[in-house]
Amino acid sequence: MPTARLETFADGVFAIAATLLIIDVTADAPGGGLGRALIHSWPQYAAYAVSFLTIGIMWVNHHACLDQIGRGDRRFLFANIALLACIAFVPFPTRLVAEHLRDDGLRAAAITYGLTMTTTAVCFGCVWFYAAAGRRLIAPDADERVVAGLSRSYLPGAPIYGLSTLVALWSATVSVILFAAIALFYMLESSLFGGRGSA
Amino acid sequence: MPTARLETFADGVFAIAATLLIIDVTADAPGGGLGRALIHSWPQYAAYAVSFLTIGIMWVNHHACLDQIGRGDRRFLFANIALLACIAFVPFPTRLVAEHLRDDGLRAAAITYGLTMTTTAVCFGCVWFYAAAGRRLIAPDADERVVAGLSRSYLPGAPIYGLSTLVALWSATVSVILFAAIALFYMLESSLFGGRGSA
Amino acid sequence: MPTARLETFADGVFAIAATLLIIDVTADAPGGGLGRALIHSWPQYAAYAVSFLTIGIMWVNHHACLDQIGRGDRRFLFANIALLACIAFVPFPTRLVAEHLRDDGLRAAAITYGLTMTTTAVCFGCVWFYAAAGRRLIAPDADERVVAGLSRSYLPGAPIYGLSTLVALWSATVSVILFAAIALFYMLESSLFGGRGSA
Amino acid sequence: MPTARLETFADGVFAIAATLLIIDVTADAPGGGLGRALIHSWPQYAAYAVSFLTIGIMWVNHHACLDQIGRGDRRFLFANIALLACIAFVPFPTRLVAEHLRDDGLRAAAITYGLTMTTTAVCFGCVWFYAAAGRRLIAPDADERVVAGLSRSYLPGAPIYGLSTLVALWSATVSVILFAAIALFYMLESSLFGGRGSA
Repeated sequence: MPTARLETFADGVFAIAATLLIIDVTADAPGGGLGRALIHSWPQYAAYAVSFLTIGIMWVNHHACLDQIGRGDRRFLFANIALLACIAFVPFPTRLVAEHLRDDGLRAAAITYGLTMTTTAVCFGCVWFYAAAGRRLIAPDADERVVAGLSRSYLPGAPIYGLSTLVALWSATVSVILFAAIALFYMLESSLFGGRGSA
Repeated sequence: MPTARLETFADGVFAIAATLLIIDVTADAPGGGLGRALIHSWPQYAAYAVSFLTIGIMWVNHHACLDQIGRGDRRFLFANIALLACIAFVPFPTRLVAEHLRDDGLRAAAITYGLTMTTTAVCFGCVWFYAAAGRRLIAPDADERVVAGLSRSYLPGAPIYGLSTLVALWSATVSVILFAAIALFYMLESSLFGGRGSA
Repeated sequence: MPTARLETFADGVFAIAATLLIIDVTADAPGGGLGRALIHSWPQYAAYAVSFLTIGIMWVNHHACLDQIGRGDRRFLFANIALLACIAFVPFPTRLVAEHLRDDGLRAAAITYGLTMTTTAVCFGCVWFYAAAGRRLIAPDADERVVAGLSRSYLPGAPIYGLSTLVALWSATVSVILFAAIALFYMLESSLFGGRGSA
Repeated sequence: MPTARLETFADGVFAIAATLLIIDVTADAPGGGLGRALIHSWPQYAAYAVSFLTIGIMWVNHHACLDQIGRGDRRFLFANIALLACIAFVPFPTRLVAEHLRDDGLRAAAITYGLTMTTTAVCFGCVWFYAAAGRRLIAPDADERVVAGLSRSYLPGAPIYGLSTLVALWSATVSVILFAAIALFYMLESSLFGGRGSA
């Protein structure tokens, strides 16, 4: 089974999940004009930017994975569906964090966001390591160093998001800053060092 | 007429229908903080998961069908459009079941969900058996055993969903549990036995 | 300029416009339980079905057009963008007709729906006749009889929708029935006679 | 790294961003029937048309860019993700302009729209000039005159949108008319002169 239609379906879910984030961006503020409401709504733009970037990073990674994978089977498809269900869920905790950034619901919102990201990272690991174990679905001509490099790069995702989620029990604000920092760090690191690599 | 553009269009509808489900997930509860509201909203997450999984299973099946089909004609396109109209309808009964899981509207919601799924299964059957009858649209090099296996696997869908819908007349709760069980059973069965098969 | 990316973009807009129709389907009724509200909301399901079918028919036609077209230029792309803007507009008048089917806003809703469809048919004509005039963008190996057949089949679209819109000035209900009948007639005619043809 | 999946993902975001604009189109007016409400809502249709056209023009430009680009790297992907985040943001300022066209919030809405477009133009420049500098990612067989022509055509975008945004400090209405005029001018110029060119 070739992976072409999986790529179309996955690209669709990534594109829609990222684009749907804008539906929840509003400019409502108690009193004052539109200008004040727009400034007051900055958490929504920040949440939009971080989530769009995070979904974009996941899309780049999914892209890098499937480039090494030569074929799929039904278990691989279902692992991908579980991963895509997590990614399509991201607009919901994003909305929660944006709405509650300045009230006492932030802890619950941050934990929801963190659990979503941790689950997504776990599903991502399942997709990749199911395909890579014993080179089960890896394309015959894939470079073993690239495959090993991808395996190394996916190991830290779930623990990092899991620990950032635990931080929310102590300070929700620090936890939210960590979520933004993870996305920014990954993008900068990829941009500084990834430009020269093959992928 | 090749089926490439049908696949792009269908993948788009599957991806959007699955992703739109998140628009209806909210965290509203009478009184209490966000944490309590999130826990109170568990039927919405469960409904999201079951529906995303169900749409994902249908996408895998559509994928398996079209892999065997070599070309399309106008009737085949319209049968697919009817099928996609059913699949794009799924977010509506999903929302109904999630909203009414704990009130006396559950019976009507479960019947709506069940009728949608039964109609979808009937349309799926029409798409497949129109293409497979006398190998009308089947690719010349398709394996007859795979085609026969697909025909066998699509026969039980409509009766199973139809019976689960009838169960709602007796107990709406049992009916909803059956809908979730059908999706989980299919995914587990595919994952346990499908990994070894060719599709 | 090849037409591959135009097809991806167009398929995306068709798929999203059709799928977004479900967002506006609700089950709200004054008083009574969910069952009664669902039955009371039948105009919404009918509007969903007619509009999904209409967008589906337009997708099939766009498909048939582009199969004959070998390349695009910038004017052709902008004509397509105008056509897609019309198609993506369809969910709005659909919602209006569904909401006002039983009150005195139906005339305005039917005229809005009809003007949208008439404009869409005009844009469709512009896309096709710009490409077909003097075989400007037609693929060199395209069969002249198929091209002439498509030209004939696109001529009646705008007048039929325009006349059905004018009917709304006399009776909005008859006009709405005509809109549904046009979609059903086209699908039946295509299904009865199109199965045997090459497209 | 080939650019095929980037094109699918980008086409998805362009298609969804354009199509989502319809969600915000409504027909609400204080008092009067639906007919009057529809006429009163004309700013929404105008905003829909201008934004759909603007996103369409950007899609045509992205298309023209990627036709000259032979391969991507990670920095190029992230520049594209930043560009797509801007494009997916467009429905929000569009909604603001449409809602506030007749009240004193128009200045803030016009500045938001202008900043979004200016940022989008800057990101577009980053995508193109990163790829074109020293022909870093340009396809080996790309015509140098086409590449130079694209470079020339992308330079004025950001300054023109930036100046139109500054105009809003003096007159918000003039600024909004400029935004519409930019889109119409570009489309007419492309249609009058682009029909004969190769792209």
